[in-house]
Amino acid sequence: MIPQPYLLFLGDAPDPLAAKVAQGIRDWRPDVAIGQFRMAGCNADMKLPDMTIAEAAAAGAKTLVVGVANRGGMISPAWIAVLREALAAGMDLASGLHNLLRDEPELVEAARTHGRTLHDVRVPAVKYPIANGKRRTGKRCLAVGTDCSVGKMYTAIAMERAMHARKLKATFRATGQTGILITGDGVPLDAVIADFMAGAIEWLTPDNDPDHWDLIEGQGSLFHASYSGVTLALIHGGQPDALILCHEPTRAHMRGLPDYTLPSLEDLAEVSLRMARIVNPACQVVGISINTAGLDEAAALDYLARTEERMKLPAVDPFRQGADRLVDALEALT
Amino acid sequence: MIPQPYLLFLGDAPDPLAAKVAQGIRDWRPDVAIGQFRMAGCNADMKLPDMTIAEAAAAGAKTLVVGVANRGGMISPAWIAVLREALAAGMDLASGLHNLLRDEPELVEAARTHGRTLHDVRVPAVKYPIANGKRRTGKRCLAVGTDCSVGKMYTAIAMERAMHARKLKATFRATGQTGILITGDGVPLDAVIADFMAGAIEWLTPDNDPDHWDLIEGQGSLFHASYSGVTLALIHGGQPDALILCHEPTRAHMRGLPDYTLPSLEDLAEVSLRMARIVNPACQVVGISINTAGLDEAAALDYLARTEERMKLPAVDPFRQGADRLVDALEALT
Repeated sequence: MIPQPYLLFLGDAPDPLAAKVAQGIRDWRPDVAIGQFRMAGCNADMKLPDMTIAEAAAAGAKTLVVGVANRGGMISPAWIAVLREALAAGMDLASGLHNLLRDEPELVEAARTHGRTLHDVRVPAVKYPIANGKRRTGKRCLAVGTDCSVGKMYTAIAMERAMHARKLKATFRATGQTGILITGDGVPLDAVIADFMAGAIEWLTPDNDPDHWDLIEGQGSLFHASYSGVTLALIHGGQPDALILCHEPTRAHMRGLPDYTLPSLEDLAEVSLRMARIVNPACQVVGISINTAGLDEAAALDYLARTEERMKLPAVDPFRQGADRLVDALEALT
Repeated sequence: MIPQPYLLFLGDAPDPLAAKVAQGIRDWRPDVAIGQFRMAGCNADMKLPDMTIAEAAAAGAKTLVVGVANRGGMISPAWIAVLREALAAGMDLASGLHNLLRDEPELVEAARTHGRTLHDVRVPAVKYPIANGKRRTGKRCLAVGTDCSVGKMYTAIAMERAMHARKLKATFRATGQTGILITGDGVPLDAVIADFMAGAIEWLTPDNDPDHWDLIEGQGSLFHASYSGVTLALIHGGQPDALILCHEPTRAHMRGLPDYTLPSLEDLAEVSLRMARIVNPACQVVGISINTAGLDEAAALDYLARTEERMKLPAVDPFRQGADRLVDALEALT
């Protein structure tokens, strides 16, 4: 577990998109982000109090989270002095960058000196087991997508929020770097060794109360040539009782694959259910989550209404509308 | 590439099964195995000349291959003196064990002293790319199974042998430790980081002559809860034009998963084609390979005949009968 609350380090982010990890934390866990640290030239702003390291430490920040990615996922030399100051002030450091905190000798030395921990969330911290395929108690819902980056994480977090508002037992289970930084733990599935992928997801979603739902963050897509194996490991390790179909309607081709168009929601439902029922014959598709960020309000509502009519399933944009109708569908299943 | 020919090290193998890596090399590449080295208590025998290290070196052995696995995949302390002697005699070492040659300080030191290389084939030696899904020239055939360990590697190697006998262009592409030791190179797919699995298979099966066939070693099964993600990465990275269905008819449940029965060949064909056609719409199932080792000759022939009648596809045991009819089916496709 990564100690909370966080100071969000935005560094010298050239634009808001470079700070999307910080934005995810800001959007979904504003309660754990007590401030932001910006350097000269920073063009991102989380609308949090700007704090010096000393101010953040005094306000109770337990971890400085690197919420910014520069080109190549590097830890910029310009950041090192700030990161060392945070360690000296008693904070841990957390990062999801490709280049690791633990590979920076100055940070390793400072962490040792001050008794702090470096959390590289891109690297698995656990020796995961081989999956055993056994049924577990409790319920699980998995978001599957027509493509990568269509809103699977946001869907699962929004459902957790809606379920907690209803006093239902639910836990968002992070499987990617941003999700792990948002929640403080999880499995960085894309960095797990092939043989242990499904076992890592079994480990992440263990036996639980019969009325508890794990809301598992999806990854990739069964239709994405680069990452489909990761997705299938999620389905077979997660043994979902319920699937949410996720889609982004304005995308011209699969992300990173200009030769591939996106599958239809019908194809996604068919293939996902076929694979999920190998491990859980009772699995159902219960709803559809559409990322309508690329549409105006009228076009979004029209698209959702037509999708709902066509698929005979609730279709919502949880970011625009909340996830209540998806939660209704989960509750109807139990 | 691992230098050939090999001296097969059988160590103190307690039974023939413990030497199955050596057996695979002996069965499929007898030409590259010039001798065997057995210690006191060895109960395995490849029917190769027993050689001392000095004799093997004089006979031209370039690599000592650890062809035995003891419990836990350890490098036994009793082996170290022999392995050091091989390095001193000018041989490389190769091993597919979980415990790595490179983690044995005495072997690292001896390899450095004598200028030799330690080949740990369980560890990827290459930084694989993310898959790009682009179509490549040349043809590819993948063996897919109802379960793990049903004969996918033997099927692909037997097809390569039959194709070479017909002077057809074909290359067996190893994706597991034994296959890599048999051929001298390949991708240890089960040890690859999740994000790079499909890319590793694209790397392994690059553009080739239009009439060249890659015969890709399968791994796991789309129906195996522990390893299905590895299998799907093989299908999407390999972009097969042809699939061979592999099955072992006497197995009571999925290997390592007592709660799961094996799928039917019909289900395997349907699901494998559905997934393969995402990346190669022309993909066809062309034949069936049955591992009949658990049946006597009459029962085997009866099972094959009934399977062929039911599935309307050539059904053979390539180990018992050769792979010619599977190669006929490949040739009919082009």
